[in-house]
Amino acid sequence: MPQLRLGLAQVNLTVGDLAGNADAVVGWTRHAAASGANLVAFPEMTLTGYPPEDLVLRRSFVAASRTAVEALAHRLADEGFGEVAVVVGYLDASGEPGDEAPPGRPAREPQNAAALLRGGRMMATYAKHHLPNYGVFDEVRYFVPGDRLPVVRLHGVDVAMTICEDLWQDGGPIEVARRATVGLVLCINGSPYERHKDDFRLDLVRRRAREAGAALAYVNLLGGQDELVFDGDSLVVDAAGELVARAPQFQPGLLLVDLDLPAATDDRVGTVNAGDGSRMQVQRVPTGTEPLPAYAPLAAGHADQLSEEAEVYAALVTGTRDYIRKNCFASVLVALSGGIDSALVATIAADALGPDAVHVVGLPSRWSSDHSIRDAHELARRQGLHWSLLSIEPIVEAFEKSVDLHGLAAENLQARVRGTTLMALSNEHGHLVLTTGNKSELATGFSTLYGDSAGGFAPIKDVPKTLVWALARWRNEQATARGETAPIPESTLTKPPSAELAPDQLDVDRLPDYAVLDPLLEDYLGAGMGHAELIAAGHDPALVDRVLPMVEAAEYKRRQYPPGPKISLKAFGRDRRVPITSAWREPG
Amino acid sequence: MPQLRLGLAQVNLTVGDLAGNADAVVGWTRHAAASGANLVAFPEMTLTGYPPEDLVLRRSFVAASRTAVEALAHRLADEGFGEVAVVVGYLDASGEPGDEAPPGRPAREPQNAAALLRGGRMMATYAKHHLPNYGVFDEVRYFVPGDRLPVVRLHGVDVAMTICEDLWQDGGPIEVARRATVGLVLCINGSPYERHKDDFRLDLVRRRAREAGAALAYVNLLGGQDELVFDGDSLVVDAAGELVARAPQFQPGLLLVDLDLPAATDDRVGTVNAGDGSRMQVQRVPTGTEPLPAYAPLAAGHADQLSEEAEVYAALVTGTRDYIRKNCFASVLVALSGGIDSALVATIAADALGPDAVHVVGLPSRWSSDHSIRDAHELARRQGLHWSLLSIEPIVEAFEKSVDLHGLAAENLQARVRGTTLMALSNEHGHLVLTTGNKSELATGFSTLYGDSAGGFAPIKDVPKTLVWALARWRNEQATARGETAPIPESTLTKPPSAELAPDQLDVDRLPDYAVLDPLLEDYLGAGMGHAELIAAGHDPALVDRVLPMVEAAEYKRRQYPPGPKISLKAFGRDRRVPITSAWREPG
Repeated sequence: MPQLRLGLAQVNLTVGDLAGNADAVVGWTRHAAASGANLVAFPEMTLTGYPPEDLVLRRSFVAASRTAVEALAHRLADEGFGEVAVVVGYLDASGEPGDEAPPGRPAREPQNAAALLRGGRMMATYAKHHLPNYGVFDEVRYFVPGDRLPVVRLHGVDVAMTICEDLWQDGGPIEVARRATVGLVLCINGSPYERHKDDFRLDLVRRRAREAGAALAYVNLLGGQDELVFDGDSLVVDAAGELVARAPQFQPGLLLVDLDLPAATDDRVGTVNAGDGSRMQVQRVPTGTEPLPAYAPLAAGHADQLSEEAEVYAALVTGTRDYIRKNCFASVLVALSGGIDSALVATIAADALGPDAVHVVGLPSRWSSDHSIRDAHELARRQGLHWSLLSIEPIVEAFEKSVDLHGLAAENLQARVRGTTLMALSNEHGHLVLTTGNKSELATGFSTLYGDSAGGFAPIKDVPKTLVWALARWRNEQATARGETAPIPESTLTKPPSAELAPDQLDVDRLPDYAVLDPLLEDYLGAGMGHAELIAAGHDPALVDRVLPMVEAAEYKRRQYPPGPKISLKAFGRDRRVPITSAWREPG
Repeated sequence: MPQLRLGLAQVNLTVGDLAGNADAVVGWTRHAAASGANLVAFPEMTLTGYPPEDLVLRRSFVAASRTAVEALAHRLADEGFGEVAVVVGYLDASGEPGDEAPPGRPAREPQNAAALLRGGRMMATYAKHHLPNYGVFDEVRYFVPGDRLPVVRLHGVDVAMTICEDLWQDGGPIEVARRATVGLVLCINGSPYERHKDDFRLDLVRRRAREAGAALAYVNLLGGQDELVFDGDSLVVDAAGELVARAPQFQPGLLLVDLDLPAATDDRVGTVNAGDGSRMQVQRVPTGTEPLPAYAPLAAGHADQLSEEAEVYAALVTGTRDYIRKNCFASVLVALSGGIDSALVATIAADALGPDAVHVVGLPSRWSSDHSIRDAHELARRQGLHWSLLSIEPIVEAFEKSVDLHGLAAENLQARVRGTTLMALSNEHGHLVLTTGNKSELATGFSTLYGDSAGGFAPIKDVPKTLVWALARWRNEQATARGETAPIPESTLTKPPSAELAPDQLDVDRLPDYAVLDPLLEDYLGAGMGHAELIAAGHDPALVDRVLPMVEAAEYKRRQYPPGPKISLKAFGRDRRVPITSAWREPG
């Protein structure tokens, strides 16, 4: 049986940084080649970063991507890696330069493509066949689907390339790979993190390997990009669907695996029924490589899967760190209220950037409790964050002398004075302001526009309040288990939540208990249940009648909220596109 | 030749308001029936409003739409209009209840549908064949395409229904209608306004009528929905492509037309090649109606087309009025600086709502010129707006005592004190705050987040500064021509633009002259030109190098900006989806 030493490069790339991403490919190929790899695969849209969104519609961007992949092929050979087959994702364009443009589209239709580079050449290219256009994905907006499957004979093994969604839909390249009797299916991915997705992903890869009758190697992107976090979780299964190797989540690196694969014998070409209503063409690509001598196998590990809290926490740290670094900020500013939300956000920031990059400020008003500032200061002390204190009282008083305010208007004023103070400090010192709102607040509109919602990035925007507590407790327990001081003061964990914008105010005065609110929000927003389904699922009808209109009425606030990492099936953002102007109310 | 009296109901509907939209159908059908119409057509997605966006993914919403269209058919007959054929758009679902859901989709696939209602029944239904998924449209996210063309024999004429994008793509239902030799193609539309689109639309309708060999009746939605404005512009052409009737833009109403149409003779059914790579099924639907006796024709007018300024101004007024009314606000608040942007926004608001609903406030600082408040007050006086004055100086001073600020941070502070003051007044009095920023500012990031960008709706968000001046001058000239006082003081029109956040500050200190900036922005953002193309188009290379990075760096501000009416080919919003985190810079 021929062998291949395969490297899956689970790497952190940057959207739009064609040069930097090409450097990353060369660097990781050097590392893989030093370990004897014959075939190295990089994630979906390696060179452009993923998702590039409307940059795809710029002719200059498509041209630069084409140039970059050709230059990369030469450069890999020039640097001595011409023998290694390197699979990269890039942005291609079908059609010919000068073609006339159809309405709403560029003349040359872009494709989400993979290239196998070897010997200084692009030996084979593949265009993604199944284009996701749901959830956060808009790929029908950008790409035309491919209808060709190149089968590359590499060291005696027939290898097919596929891209991400090609696995999630029935038929298409997996069916064609089966009919072409390939030995290995490579799938390059930009598959965003969602809670519980990793188990689903493994099951899917196993099933597709069995369907294709071939080993399947799955390499996924790592790192944050605006609201998306890519968790890696690259893996390899054999033709029977058994797990051969699995990389850790949220850690960049190279997964090296030795695979014994069946020798290629099939030379049929032609057009076949892809089983999804389309036809695809099988194209054979010889590489002139002979089967390799057998290796002593490397120990390819199975990374332990993370606990749910560990996984979510890692996603938040990764998303926050990458937003800050890739947007070239060196430090962040967080307003600490003494409550759990801002405590968790500051802790995430310190874990992402180190405590020296985290500036925290207490902004007490006349309604702040003594414990608020004490707890905030104690958190800063425990973690070694830069602490400062600034009473908003004189500013609030100046406003109140000029404008006569009552009730909610007076409460919101305090939040907006804090927002303005934070933005002023941000402008003066160059820190990025982190917004501390959680998903339960954002869903119900329990926040002040331009007040506590002000900031550049919102790390816990997709985290319901009950999970905020769970993550904070988990983070403290991790520290304690390592013999360190718990980063978050116990009283912050146990105090009843309050916005402290009026005397003796508690969240429960205006919101249902989070323990009943969060499951309702999850069923309404995540599972998309209607009124009748929610009641059938056991939610209190009075609660349903109270909460649903709060969610609908707050859409305008969500539209102006900063981005933050998606961790759920259905995050606010690209994932959920609802009108602000809407008279729709769930029938009660 | 058989005759039909056709009514095209160019009406203003509300997203999500199934009951209110059904009422509108009954009301306009009553009016059309009183005028003797046999066939009345309503815009795309009549019952749900358009575009309903992710409401389509809610099972409860699809079910409610299905119920609503069936109830409407009964109600029309019950109210005595059973003889009239009424074509409405609605949200349908293909597949059967209980079907298993594919990944990322509801089990029953939604369709963007049209129904012909007559005699208390849904006599025929059609599902949109071509689904737009570019620009502001995401229809592949929501709908599955139809593959069936019902041909309804009504009073001896064969009539086919189509929906919007079906006209904008080659092949499909137009080709099938030709092969089925129909006498009339009805097209129901939700086609958003863009500058210059009406001429393009007429040419398109003419061409498709000639291709189909049939008269073509085009009815379009009217009114604002979040960032979209629908301009009506309904029209009818004959089989030779000659214009028969055209409704005015931006005015709701019924366009009544008598049409002499060829008698139906063709009875072929079956599946035909639709000329776009798909096959469609022709379905014949008899209605049991005999040809009607000939009418004395109504005088069907050709509405005059509006001038460019009139058209854009009407779009801004319509979009602003509908956002405010449909979101149930009774009044608005605008900060008047004495400059042209806020002057135009206040004038638009007064034209949209009447002066009594418009509250304006002058918010001078230490750097405000004498003429600023004088001009602001004079504008309020001329238009009869509610005027107030509130110096921000004491509040700015209170901030400055607490936080040490310099340069840009000190400038932004003033803008944010204004933003906070406006939001406080909004909370206290219930006015919606209108944001006064223009497209040139928004493109270059020449605004303060949570400062001058604060507000609920931004009427001139898609209007470049040079067009702001042109619209203001046009509005003044219109008033003068009618013998009225010009609403905007002359000195507001002629003064050099300044943010007045520092002594003797002018926009030209930080931005290029708007006369060279705006054409560059249009070519970069609208036409999508790259660096080399911009220079080839005659833009100053130094200006290109200066402006492009400003545009890219301001994406994070645009993401938190309020919605505003789209008037250009490429507005900021759903139309342009670019990453915040991006290292892409146009190659220089």
